[in-house]
Amino acid sequence: MTRLADTIATIHPLDRAVQAAAAERQSRLTKPPGSLGVLEALAAQLAGLARACPPPIPEPAVVAIFAGDHGVHAQGVTPWPQEVTAQMVANFVTGGAVVNAFARQTGASVYVIDVGVAGMLPADAGAGLLSRKIRPGTVDMTVGAAMTRPEAEAAIETGIEVAAELAAAGYRCLLTGDMGIANTTASAALISAFTRREPAAVTGRGTGIDDVTYGRKVEVVRRALAVHKPDPADPVGTLAAVGGLEHAALAGFLLGAAAARIPVILDGVTAGSAALVAAGLSADVLAACVAGHRSAEPGHAIALKHLGLNPLIELELRLGEGTGALLALPIVQSAVRVLHDVATFDAAGVTEKA
Amino acid sequence: MTRLADTIATIHPLDRAVQAAAAERQSRLTKPPGSLGVLEALAAQLAGLARACPPPIPEPAVVAIFAGDHGVHAQGVTPWPQEVTAQMVANFVTGGAVVNAFARQTGASVYVIDVGVAGMLPADAGAGLLSRKIRPGTVDMTVGAAMTRPEAEAAIETGIEVAAELAAAGYRCLLTGDMGIANTTASAALISAFTRREPAAVTGRGTGIDDVTYGRKVEVVRRALAVHKPDPADPVGTLAAVGGLEHAALAGFLLGAAAARIPVILDGVTAGSAALVAAGLSADVLAACVAGHRSAEPGHAIALKHLGLNPLIELELRLGEGTGALLALPIVQSAVRVLHDVATFDAAGVTEKA
Repeated sequence: MTRLADTIATIHPLDRAVQAAAAERQSRLTKPPGSLGVLEALAAQLAGLARACPPPIPEPAVVAIFAGDHGVHAQGVTPWPQEVTAQMVANFVTGGAVVNAFARQTGASVYVIDVGVAGMLPADAGAGLLSRKIRPGTVDMTVGAAMTRPEAEAAIETGIEVAAELAAAGYRCLLTGDMGIANTTASAALISAFTRREPAAVTGRGTGIDDVTYGRKVEVVRRALAVHKPDPADPVGTLAAVGGLEHAALAGFLLGAAAARIPVILDGVTAGSAALVAAGLSADVLAACVAGHRSAEPGHAIALKHLGLNPLIELELRLGEGTGALLALPIVQSAVRVLHDVATFDAAGVTEKA
Repeated sequence: MTRLADTIATIHPLDRAVQAAAAERQSRLTKPPGSLGVLEALAAQLAGLARACPPPIPEPAVVAIFAGDHGVHAQGVTPWPQEVTAQMVANFVTGGAVVNAFARQTGASVYVIDVGVAGMLPADAGAGLLSRKIRPGTVDMTVGAAMTRPEAEAAIETGIEVAAELAAAGYRCLLTGDMGIANTTASAALISAFTRREPAAVTGRGTGIDDVTYGRKVEVVRRALAVHKPDPADPVGTLAAVGGLEHAALAGFLLGAAAARIPVILDGVTAGSAALVAAGLSADVLAACVAGHRSAEPGHAIALKHLGLNPLIELELRLGEGTGALLALPIVQSAVRVLHDVATFDAAGVTEKA
């Protein structure tokens, strides 16, 4: 656990003085005070994170799609076969998925990190696919712990490493992505464990399941939590019991971004549940986190509220992959660009209000 | 009025068959059905508008900022001096405003069209400024009609022409922008006239006015409507009575976009009030309209609801200029790009759900 402990030790809260300097700068720019709404606080957050005003414009950006499979798939929580996880990883690598289309539109790069895909992946997948498999899918959480504590720790550290590697490669904005058939079941279990809300309140229809499957999914979450009785004061233990390998890696990815003082835009419910784990390990991780959007999953709104994060976009998306984070990316970049580009009243010769 | 009548005759409703073809195509792409939320209907709308599936990706994009002054400024509805309109036009032209920063981030061009600025504008402003002044500011609407009917018609036709010119120049997405100190007073009066809601319900604090100024502003809107008793069945008459020159030009701009079958992203409350005028002239103008965001102005939400438009973004912006439309631009482009770039289940070898 040295890498995790070292990373947590590196994470600091926002620099309040720099944050205040950003707010002060906003007041001198040629626009009515406060007229950029939530973008002003967002720009100040990223200034406080970077300890610089203006902070770097968050580009280039990269989506890291952590992929894993789920033993709980055997419980019939989704109509999609497990092999779709590997098939969609191949689709990401060849650029045919929605996340690729959105990334192309916003100029972001896409990496896929296999931390736990059960199926075979293409051998010739190229540079966009990183093989960091911890194990081929989790154990069915209704039967046993989804993974061992060392496996959960290893997956967290993988996420930390990926964030550090992408920061070293020059990326200045990280975006979360995820792929894993049945992973909203693990997300719901984590959210229920950390927020103490009932499984029925935090479990959603994922890709769009019917009533019978939905009822089964809620019952599966309830049973898993009854079996393990996870203690949210032990985030790694909770993660190991009812989480997923991609959830673990995402938690590490957020910690790694915060340690590097680089903003990370969270995608949907899987990122939200991973953020609960990360915040349990270090509350200051939230200094680096921006909630990209709020998905249609009810647990996502509950997780974000618990974390005190306000989503930038709400468009009823429920796709995952990093798609919601990518739609928010230009908004985050635009918010920061204001502090770089916009003229002051003095410089532009614009009269201030009486 | 030939140009206006001709334009209206050219506007058609969405092609329902193409819209349906877009929805059908969405169902074959490698994602759960419906998982892109409101983006799926948006992409289908733009397919129906273009009568092509997939429709062209809406780029390059251009913001047209229509600028004008308001006689009602004399009533003390804002603490900003009227000269700020001309000063901000100069700021747009030199690239120092928030709209320029956002346009740079999203790759959009910016044009400013003077349809009624009262103050002096820089003579050497360059290609980004179009001089199409109808008159130097409106008449105080509490005293007389803001403009004559021929002036309102001329401003509408100017907006139509600008849309046609930008379409001919190769732009494939138009965005509304506006600048005019006191123009939210005219917007509120128009919204009250068209939606029949009380002035107090539709009048907002614009740039952020204090309680005393706000009370005065509501009273000014009430008085203007009492003086003119505008009939919403006569959109041009209503516009002439209590509108602004930029509102008139924006109404024409929307009609011109619809006639050219090019999408137009609406910015804030001024665009929303102009859309009420345009929809009064041709309900099918809405086929081309996308509500970029919902501003903090209460009248904006009321106008959008009246029009049946759902905003893509809600970030408490209250700046105008086209800033909210620009933040929505990558979302609109991404929605359409899905229909171009995303692989089908068959092509990608991804198994569909059971």
